[in-house]
This record gives sequence, C-alpha cells and structure tokens, in this order.
Amino acid sequence: MKQISTILEFSTLRQGLVEITHEVTDWVAEAGVQEGLLTLFCRHTSASLLIQENAAAEVRADLESYFARIAPEDPAAYAHDDEGSDDMPAYLRAALTQVQLSIPLIDGRLALGTWQGIYLFEHRRRPHRRSIAVHLIGA
Amino acid sequence: MKQISTILEFSTLRQGLVEITHEVTDWVAEAGVQEGLLTLFCRHTSASLLIQENAAAEVRADLESYFARIAPEDPAAYAHDDEGSDDMPAYLRAALTQVQLSIPLIDGRLALGTWQGIYLFEHRRRPHRRSIAVHLIGA
Amino acid sequence: MKQISTILEFSTLRQGLVEITHEVTDWVAEAGVQEGLLTLFCRHTSASLLIQENAAAEVRADLESYFARIAPEDPAAYAHDDEGSDDMPAYLRAALTQVQLSIPLIDGRLALGTWQGIYLFEHRRRPHRRSIAVHLIGA
Repeated sequence: MKQISTILEFSTLRQGLVEITHEVTDWVAEAGVQEGLLTLFCRHTSASLLIQENAAAEVRADLESYFARIAPEDPAAYAHDDEGSDDMPAYLRAALTQVQLSIPLIDGRLALGTWQGIYLFEHRRRPHRRSIAVHLIGA
Repeated sequence: MKQISTILEFSTLRQGLVEITHEVTDWVAEAGVQEGLLTLFCRHTSASLLIQENAAAEVRADLESYFARIAPEDPAAYAHDDEGSDDMPAYLRAALTQVQLSIPLIDGRLALGTWQGIYLFEHRRRPHRRSIAVHLIGA
Repeated sequence: MKQISTILEFSTLRQGLVEITHEVTDWVAEAGVQEGLLTLFCRHTSASLLIQENAAAEVRADLESYFARIAPEDPAAYAHDDEGSDDMPAYLRAALTQVQLSIPLIDGRLALGTWQGIYLFEHRRRPHRRSIAVHLIGA
C-alpha cells in the first residue's frame, strides 16, 4: 500500500464550471496505482467541486443559472458584503455543493461513469488561482 | 492493511429514495475488516446518495417533495430538455445532494448513527439500472 | 501505513454553526501522521458538517439565515411533524449540506485553506449531544 499527494493549481476566469477531469486523470495515471481511493479537496470557501454531465454544454449553463437563482446576488439579503456582492452568494453556492470528492480507482481507472466529469465550480466574478489538495492511497 | 472494491448494481422503479443500507452492510461484513473506511460512489449524474432518517416513511416523502419543489420540472427554466423534462432537474437534485459518501468502520461496524440509513436517490421518472462503486480500505 | 479512529463528542446549545477546527486538529496532531486522509462522519440526521469561512462572524449568520429561508419551518409544507416543527427542516438542511468530510493531510497538517474552518451545523433548536466518527489513515 502506498500514498501520494500533491496540490494542483487552476486558473479561473469567471463564474462557472471548469472541467478538470483530464488534469486529475493524468495525475492519477502517473501514480501507477491499480486499486485505491482518490480524494480531491478544494482549499477555498468561494469555489467548490462537482461531478456533472460532461456531454451537453447547455447542462452546465443551466446548472450555473440555477445556482445563481437559488443563491442570488442580493445586497438586501445578506449582512456580509465587504468583499463585493458576489462574495456571500459564493459561500452559499459552495455550501450547497461540496469542497471534497473521493473517487475509487478500480483496475487502474477512476470509477467515473460514462457521462461524469469532474468540475471546479468558480463562484466569484473575477479571475482567481484555485488550489486543490489531491490524495491517492492504494496499490 | 488491505483494500477491496466492487461495483454494486441496483434497479430503481421511479423517482425517490431507495434504501441500500442492508446491501452495503452485507458486503462490508463479508470483507472481514474491523477498522477502516468505506467509500460509495454513484456512477451517474441523475441519481445520487444520501444518508437519511430510516424510521418514518413520511420523512422520505417530505424529502422527495422538497427536492421536487426547489429543483422543479419546468421546461421554461432550462435550455437542456433533449432527454425529457425530468432530466435537467435530475442533474440539479444530484448537485444539491452528492454522488459520494465515505463512512468509517469502527469495531467491525459502519459508524452510522441509530437513525441513519444509506439511500440511493433516483431522480428520473423511468426505471434505471444504477451502479455504485464501493471501496473499503482497512484491517 | 497505520490508521486510528475515535468518536468525538460535541454539545450544541441552539441552531447554528459550531466551529470544531481546533478539536479536530488537536486530535490529528496527537496521531503523529505526516501524510494521510482524515474523514469526519456526523452520526445524526438533523446535524451536518460544513467547511466555511472562519473570519467574519456575519458570514456564519448569513449562512444560518439562508438555510432557514430555503428549508423553512412551515407545518403546512411537511407531513412529518411528530418531533416538532424544526425536525423536518433539520433533515432538509442536513441533506443540502453533508454529513461527511474528508481532508488530506500533507506535511503533517490538514490541507485546509487559510480561510477554511470545520463546522458542525446544528439544525435543531434545543441543545443536543452530537457524535462525530473520526478516521485517519496514513504514515
């Protein structure tokens, strides 16, 4: 049994879903593990992780609009607005999704379904550097 | 330290919560591990996993109605509708819950609370085959 | 490779977020692990876990109000009310957040971001004892 960990860095340009499946699977492939458990942990409170449909682009657009509707920018609704009107909704959207994902590795491959992609969900309007801690344990 | 993994398959008949606690605990019991970590990963974007109350059936009915209200079927609200009006809401309900759960195993038993059951949450109207990747590491 | 597990107990006084970062990091520090994976599992259906902003107190107040708005106490909305009007909303708020969190441990420290704290989210009005199963695997 062995374990490997690292920090992967991503640049985001605007609010929305950024697919990171390839960066993650490339890193896993180099580790040379056949069976194990991969964990991704987003080290931010205004960005999160999501497994979602990787085929239709309009699914991602609908997801982004939906979260904008249920956790809207609305200065009247929040006490916290020191860092801009997109800050408090960012925390809410992160809370409604999650900052951590674990995926089993079976027969040398992540056990993702055919239509599943791994996405970093940026909740702030401006570009950000986002860091994701990655841990793999297995053999 | 050892690890074991498999794919468990479940049939769903309609939208709603399907308890899978017994299938999961039976698989864990056969593994002969006393202390460890179990991970379940739902390999679909229109079904998800939930730990919920296992006693009162009306709690599950209320949960199902709630998710139908906050992520409703509403053709006017979504661009994506190629696969039916229940498709986009299915992705949203999966995003609001989660596709992955990890549960510690202590003294030979999953550390579930007395009232906690493990549920597969089907978000599509028609029957589906759902596969869940299962990974256990421990000793 | 080794693993350690325990049950940590917390007392809550009312609805809201209770920071547990220090209790968790203290326990991890005693384990003497440099690299590994920590898993927290909340053994209740009416309390949950959340990684959130640890600096501004009004962020936590806004989070609490938000969840009270999207999963409100409303006897007309739910069939289940045997245990009080705060019971069904508690299950919904737990379902919208999560009962489990895993965090990688790198260079002897949890890979939390600068502004991230670990919170127990109590969803019932009255004081409760809450137990969290904790599992650490690593070396």
